[in-house]
Amino acid sequence: MRIGIVGSGAVGLYYGARLQRSGQDIRFLLRGDYAAILRSGIRVRASDTSFQIKDVSGYRNSSEIGEVDLVIVSVKSTSNSELPRLLKPLIKTRTIILTLQNGLGNYEFLRSAFPGNPVLVGACFVCLNRVGPGVVENHYLGSVVLGGDEEEAPMLAPSIAQVLESARIRCRVGQDPHQLLWEKLLWNVPFNGLAIAAGEISTDLILSSEALSGLARGLMEEIVQGAESQGLRIEGELIERLMKETRSMGSYRPSSLVDFVDGKPVELESIWGEPLRRAMSAGVELPKLETLYRLLKILCVSNEWVRARRAIEGSPALADPLSRECL
Amino acid sequence: MRIGIVGSGAVGLYYGARLQRSGQDIRFLLRGDYAAILRSGIRVRASDTSFQIKDVSGYRNSSEIGEVDLVIVSVKSTSNSELPRLLKPLIKTRTIILTLQNGLGNYEFLRSAFPGNPVLVGACFVCLNRVGPGVVENHYLGSVVLGGDEEEAPMLAPSIAQVLESARIRCRVGQDPHQLLWEKLLWNVPFNGLAIAAGEISTDLILSSEALSGLARGLMEEIVQGAESQGLRIEGELIERLMKETRSMGSYRPSSLVDFVDGKPVELESIWGEPLRRAMSAGVELPKLETLYRLLKILCVSNEWVRARRAIEGSPALADPLSRECL
Repeated sequence: MRIGIVGSGAVGLYYGARLQRSGQDIRFLLRGDYAAILRSGIRVRASDTSFQIKDVSGYRNSSEIGEVDLVIVSVKSTSNSELPRLLKPLIKTRTIILTLQNGLGNYEFLRSAFPGNPVLVGACFVCLNRVGPGVVENHYLGSVVLGGDEEEAPMLAPSIAQVLESARIRCRVGQDPHQLLWEKLLWNVPFNGLAIAAGEISTDLILSSEALSGLARGLMEEIVQGAESQGLRIEGELIERLMKETRSMGSYRPSSLVDFVDGKPVELESIWGEPLRRAMSAGVELPKLETLYRLLKILCVSNEWVRARRAIEGSPALADPLSRECL
Repeated sequence: MRIGIVGSGAVGLYYGARLQRSGQDIRFLLRGDYAAILRSGIRVRASDTSFQIKDVSGYRNSSEIGEVDLVIVSVKSTSNSELPRLLKPLIKTRTIILTLQNGLGNYEFLRSAFPGNPVLVGACFVCLNRVGPGVVENHYLGSVVLGGDEEEAPMLAPSIAQVLESARIRCRVGQDPHQLLWEKLLWNVPFNGLAIAAGEISTDLILSSEALSGLARGLMEEIVQGAESQGLRIEGELIERLMKETRSMGSYRPSSLVDFVDGKPVELESIWGEPLRRAMSAGVELPKLETLYRLLKILCVSNEWVRARRAIEGSPALADPLSRECL
């Protein structure tokens, strides 16, 4: 199967490398790591195995990749506006689009941008960190749960699941894509958010603090309510299971914390803003999520600004964002 | 009137200096600023006047002060446990105790520690910053509202109000002390809290951000609900008045932010913890306050720890507080 990987951060590199090792024809769209990966390949240090793939088909431009059977979308949701342009050269009539992105809105965005193609959602319950150019560490093996439109998914998801399973990626086919995404939010909302807002800390410190683990639970309960406002149902025991799994992850830095510390855009709207707005539209208040979202909004804006100003000291183009009306 | 000032931070120095200039016999309990104030006196830069008092009666030890007619308590609530010892030498049968402290719990604490003496509450709506040893800046003149027990306050508060007014401190006599303290919380909870949690910012930046000013309003509405849970009633229009007054304060750094940045204990329990607990005991959830309180708890503990470790590098007595069970 010819598979294009659009978004070669930790997620794209990890799944792409596993798929290539299993014999698939993988084509990576690369940016910053292009030279390093073409030179040294991709190295994966996973909890079940460590391996390196050397002969990587990497491209700087998606038009060089050509048409593929499957596109795996693993860019940050903050770059979604670039996706129609980036994906277009890869798409033929039956190309399947699989988004592995965090949060809400990406699935709908891809469906409206590519109305003629099937779009699947993959909710990745996994711990990945890109620790260097082309080097990915996996701390928690986890699994991918696939879902999609009720007409297309039953036909397509099982075959994609088989491709992933052949690459030793634990995978199962779920139901409703919204269900999967809200279940994924159950983890991302508290852990990605508190990792930033509580002063740049890893998940083990969130769990070791009674104040923060209590707040994590409170946020999870709100996500359950938010899902209910959308006609979905998350079993309460999933909260306990995720808390337990998080304990087994050790000192994990969620992707949003990594982005924050690197001064990169954080997936603020897809992870926190969009679920809040959808619940509020359905008449359900999520006050803890609202508080966290509003604080993160300011922390992320000033963080980007501070780090950008440090990088381009004295640039007149950068006015203090907190004094602007945009917030 | 002989008046003892216990707690010579911005609040104690400011009101003490004004009272001394009006002819009262003021005796300051001093710590860090002792030498500087004995040498150079106290300087006040207020929005209505600037002045210096040179001949300051400062003491390192409260037993040297002797008995007084009025004790003004202006220590941080985090030092309350020291108050019985510090105040005892100042107290005679009719000595009035006036607490100008922030938050809930201080009034009750002083009443139980000194059951034979009248205790008044003064809610200070004022902007003060200690900008150097013995130097206080006032950015917003504000006023003090006095209250106390319904048997004692009607007799005592008017005469204390007259003493303050003679020192050109705007003052009025309110009713219930709990009412005054919850009204003061209406400002302290959002502005002191967000100034820390949103990344060490001043009040003007809180107001200029739509996300944060919206959150400030949301927290104020919860404080109104919290007050209601205690049988009190805060008029909704007070929210608008405080927002307007805060705009006139300019770039003000609330006292808790100053403490936080200095690595000093923040009045976490009296400002955020105690109102939350009282509302919850009355069956009222305040989820935005709860979220803010839990985040501040961690931020303050790790902040003190980080700054303490910086000060005493390598001290074995300082273990990472986030890895302890105490949170």
